[in-house]
Amino acid sequence: MKFCSQCGQAVRQIIPQGDNRLRFVCAGCGTIHYSNPNNVCGAILTWQDKILLCRRAIEPRYGLWTLPAGFMENGETVMEAAARESMEEANAVAKKLDLFAVFSLPHISQVYLMFHGELANEQVSAGTESLETGLFNIADIPWSELAFPVINRSLQLYIEHLQKDTKRSAVYTATAIKQADGKVDWVNR
Amino acid sequence: MKFCSQCGQAVRQIIPQGDNRLRFVCAGCGTIHYSNPNNVCGAILTWQDKILLCRRAIEPRYGLWTLPAGFMENGETVMEAAARESMEEANAVAKKLDLFAVFSLPHISQVYLMFHGELANEQVSAGTESLETGLFNIADIPWSELAFPVINRSLQLYIEHLQKDTKRSAVYTATAIKQADGKVDWVNR
Repeated sequence: MKFCSQCGQAVRQIIPQGDNRLRFVCAGCGTIHYSNPNNVCGAILTWQDKILLCRRAIEPRYGLWTLPAGFMENGETVMEAAARESMEEANAVAKKLDLFAVFSLPHISQVYLMFHGELANEQVSAGTESLETGLFNIADIPWSELAFPVINRSLQLYIEHLQKDTKRSAVYTATAIKQADGKVDWVNR
Repeated sequence: MKFCSQCGQAVRQIIPQGDNRLRFVCAGCGTIHYSNPNNVCGAILTWQDKILLCRRAIEPRYGLWTLPAGFMENGETVMEAAARESMEEANAVAKKLDLFAVFSLPHISQVYLMFHGELANEQVSAGTESLETGLFNIADIPWSELAFPVINRSLQLYIEHLQKDTKRSAVYTATAIKQADGKVDWVNR
């Protein structure tokens, strides 16, 4: 951020009075510009035990497989965002959505809110951000071609969840810890 | 938003190519400025069955009681945000935090992530944003003097949760629906 979005003058980074963090503050009109984490909402959707995945038609990770997920928009709920992304990326109608996991990714200031639910029907197809969609048996999940660590983690947790036969209302929480080598570890909190 | 934070030129609201929503886009450099919901993280903290509340020393709702909660910051996890707000608003050391509820407030584009846990000790006191702190028995909660509908809802759910003796790992989801008269209803999703 270089300029004030309210008055167009230059901003500087200072700690405002009563605050304890550097913020972009307008040298002209004094507006404090806060920057906060973004939510990504997505869904693990099944059709007769098969899991819906989409192959990305956009960067980053073009060509790799992912769960339908994307940035939450103003004016919607977390569940509406997950359903909307399912429709946009896979033309998928989601039903019986329940919150499944909340992932903190502090190194990129994102929070993933991942739902699980069912496909209302088998008619899924690539939206504009996908090259193709697929319904995968668990044994056929393309682990080495998944787009993001949080997608791996979501699917691993989901499979463990199925094996444990836990109550469907369980919600998992985890935090991504980015290592020096760029890999991501997870802690369960 | 009136000016581009990257180059200082005027922005206009258009639907960018490949998008389906109005965004602020710079007429000069073309930067698309997204606006997304903010997370508020907070905690229901108990000391021997008593619940920690803080009386607000800031607007809005100056003088009313609230749970420690505030905007999540970049670079932290949802749980760290809840613990930090507990410290900032009540000098409270939180322990055994678990996610308790996720509330969508689409009318103000906020998501509340409310934890529950214990106070590490009884030494709580007002931070700079609080007039005072209090440890309340459930029978003494000042329902008519709570700051926000989401605080009422959090405490109601927490009391129901205690009565049901549900597993501690249960996580509730709810959406605030703002009515024409300004009141807020809740749906469980």
